[in-house]
Amino acid sequence: MKRNERIAAMTRILTENPNQIYTLTYFADLFESAKSTISEDLVIMREVFDYFELGQFVTVTGAAGGVKFLPIPGKKQGFEFVRNLCRKLSEPERVLPGGFLYMSDVLADPGTVQRMGELLAAQFVRQQPDFVLTIETRGIPVALMTARALGVPLVVARRDTRALEGSLVTISYMSGSGKMEMMSLARRAVSEGQRALIIDDFMHAGGSAKGLADLMREFSVSVVGTGIVMSMSNPQRKMVDNYVSLMQMHELSDGTLRVEPAPWLLG
Amino acid sequence: MKRNERIAAMTRILTENPNQIYTLTYFADLFESAKSTISEDLVIMREVFDYFELGQFVTVTGAAGGVKFLPIPGKKQGFEFVRNLCRKLSEPERVLPGGFLYMSDVLADPGTVQRMGELLAAQFVRQQPDFVLTIETRGIPVALMTARALGVPLVVARRDTRALEGSLVTISYMSGSGKMEMMSLARRAVSEGQRALIIDDFMHAGGSAKGLADLMREFSVSVVGTGIVMSMSNPQRKMVDNYVSLMQMHELSDGTLRVEPAPWLLG
Repeated sequence: MKRNERIAAMTRILTENPNQIYTLTYFADLFESAKSTISEDLVIMREVFDYFELGQFVTVTGAAGGVKFLPIPGKKQGFEFVRNLCRKLSEPERVLPGGFLYMSDVLADPGTVQRMGELLAAQFVRQQPDFVLTIETRGIPVALMTARALGVPLVVARRDTRALEGSLVTISYMSGSGKMEMMSLARRAVSEGQRALIIDDFMHAGGSAKGLADLMREFSVSVVGTGIVMSMSNPQRKMVDNYVSLMQMHELSDGTLRVEPAPWLLG
Repeated sequence: MKRNERIAAMTRILTENPNQIYTLTYFADLFESAKSTISEDLVIMREVFDYFELGQFVTVTGAAGGVKFLPIPGKKQGFEFVRNLCRKLSEPERVLPGGFLYMSDVLADPGTVQRMGELLAAQFVRQQPDFVLTIETRGIPVALMTARALGVPLVVARRDTRALEGSLVTISYMSGSGKMEMMSLARRAVSEGQRALIIDDFMHAGGSAKGLADLMREFSVSVVGTGIVMSMSNPQRKMVDNYVSLMQMHELSDGTLRVEPAPWLLG
């Protein structure tokens, strides 16, 4: 096996399985090469990935050590992606009766949600969540891609309290529109002591995110953060702290909507 | 830029954007190389991907020609993945009251749904669907990954006929349990003349799949096929033709469930 060939295969294997540690021994056995040779291959891969901002190969030391891939977008790349998304969402035909914005297409486009998920994952990878939590329906694709980038499972809370998933824990919460709603999760879906990252498509006052955090308390699971695709600038004060959104929506005094990248993307 | 480096970057770019055509000129410009050099790189990538069954690089000829990547699993690999999944789903603690099977964790695990989506995409890539269609909730992750593998958008029909997505088309359909249900889709979500691939997590008699096909008729969209994660062996006759499932569930005479890979995976 030549270096060219090893690099093609290693790039595919590592990038398809983000945040999963592969030992050098694994690759050495796969290619019948020395571990030092694999290390040299990785140096080349790391340099070219840095140059083109294609993501990061991270060396993990210790007994369970090896190398893993984090699909973290470059700063400029991330900002430009969100800015283009804001432009797309600002098309006038997207405004629905009642002042809502049609976003369903954007929230279900694989390439788009993958990049969103990678941006959100990058914000929380150091908090080492054990799983990503969302509530049906529209946030599921982004949440799945965030989970993929972090190499952890996705857990989906249901609005349907009759879901056929065995014994459920159900809570009630106040939705953005001030109505009482219910959400439920299978008792077996998560374990005590785990760490959850909450991901959702939209935040108004933060009712759903607060509900999801309350739900996690019932499971003795801690919440390491909340990632949102689009948050309303009003109300400024949300029902949860420690959230990050990719875009902000401002409702101007004449009732029109303005969509902007979140300020942290520039920093 | 050396061959090693070009191959690492090209592998990442092509595999991250399945079924998207990249021209040789694109890579020649990116790397400041001759197109013939890029062609040679691709020969190496193709050989090693074939050897390790990592997917296929396909050359597209003509004016809009170039190269694209299809994440098609190897036959043996695909069968073994589904067989292991069947073993996992056969754990006795998964059987819920009423004879249902707890599958929510499997249907939301990024690595698992990605492989499921790639297997289903491989069955329908030649039919060139314009989008993947599913109905909320549990099929969304698999449908998203199928759409990703095909390089097309995902469209999600809602059970909630009050979804805030502008004008909706709503139909009623007979669910697996013999109840009348409703599903709706935003008028703007798809266009006349497009080709849909239906993906869902579960098929009993095929009521939901039939409903989705009826819904597409309202939009003058043709259905190129139906891909299912798990189908019940009974009733044998479904309400739709031309469907493919990854696994079959048999309900034995003593009420226990047996889960098996679909026979076509062996062929």
